[in-house]
Amino acid sequence: MPGPAIERLIHLLAKLPGLGPRSARRAALTLVKRREALMEPLVEALSEAAASIRACPLCGNLDSQEPCAICADPKRDPSVLCVVADVADLWALERSGAFRGRYHVLGGILSALDGVGPDDLAIAALVARARAPTITEIVLALGATVAGQTTAHYLADRLAECQVTVSGLAHGVPVGGELDYLDEGTLAAALKARRPV
Amino acid sequence: MPGPAIERLIHLLAKLPGLGPRSARRAALTLVKRREALMEPLVEALSEAAASIRACPLCGNLDSQEPCAICADPKRDPSVLCVVADVADLWALERSGAFRGRYHVLGGILSALDGVGPDDLAIAALVARARAPTITEIVLALGATVAGQTTAHYLADRLAECQVTVSGLAHGVPVGGELDYLDEGTLAAALKARRPV
Repeated sequence: MPGPAIERLIHLLAKLPGLGPRSARRAALTLVKRREALMEPLVEALSEAAASIRACPLCGNLDSQEPCAICADPKRDPSVLCVVADVADLWALERSGAFRGRYHVLGGILSALDGVGPDDLAIAALVARARAPTITEIVLALGATVAGQTTAHYLADRLAECQVTVSGLAHGVPVGGELDYLDEGTLAAALKARRPV
Repeated sequence: MPGPAIERLIHLLAKLPGLGPRSARRAALTLVKRREALMEPLVEALSEAAASIRACPLCGNLDSQEPCAICADPKRDPSVLCVVADVADLWALERSGAFRGRYHVLGGILSALDGVGPDDLAIAALVARARAPTITEIVLALGATVAGQTTAHYLADRLAECQVTVSGLAHGVPVGGELDYLDEGTLAAALKARRPV
């Protein structure tokens, strides 16, 4: 029977996505056995991340600098904003290397079922950003699910008052697919073929 | 693109068994988002485990007390030692609740291929423990693999000089297992070891 200190570690590790009780036990054992090579660096990395990582006040990306590295990068195109539901989607698009503008993280998608309304997402902030004269295009990079497309239509309506082109990812994103699980090639193709909504 | 602090966290999480690069990213994101509920408790649990958990000097179990809770428990039968390859096997046996003696963790199994010889395992310590007059039985709870059985045979030879009964786990049909899906070796072993109902 693992002692209480290990039990507590296993209990917390099992809360991570992708780790069940059995794999959490294996992970805890690996950590305890590889104290210097793995456990101590992980404590340090976690502490550092907990202390330094904040949501970017401009786009909602998570980074240890404010504004985030993408918002602060003068080489990124300031005229195009890519709207994503979640930071994981932003990372997925960055891995594709196909987008050189900036981002706007909504923090979720509209869902009547889960009680997520427009006020629960960073939509007012998006409209405010879209009003800036530098912005010429807003790319809605939302999943090709019913909820994702509902959110995209709602955003297109809200953004109609702004002087911007609103586009969406091209079809090529498999229907029912989540952005985070897509390969980089499909993401790049979908982004390159984006069309006005 | 995740910043360097998150990248480092992802890199370390991906070294845990059961987490690939993609699930390590998801885990890192969950951690950063659930700072107070998950990340900070995990830092604490890891620090505590790193500071307190040691291998038991008697049996090799990992615990925050020395000797471990099992070796220190006066209600455990002091006459039976169960030999396991790894602490994970010890935990598995404890979950079964079927063994009330004490343990001896070898720290691996003999493997010519991986260059693991008798001196790399806690075999001399096992023989020394087996010489104590209190010990009457040694149960070899090693995997039913070629390497596991080779190790068991080697241990039985080494323990022949001690005044102990050396036993091994029974082979048979796993509880809940379908005969149709079992390999022939297991079926043959189960048939050979058949018992009156």
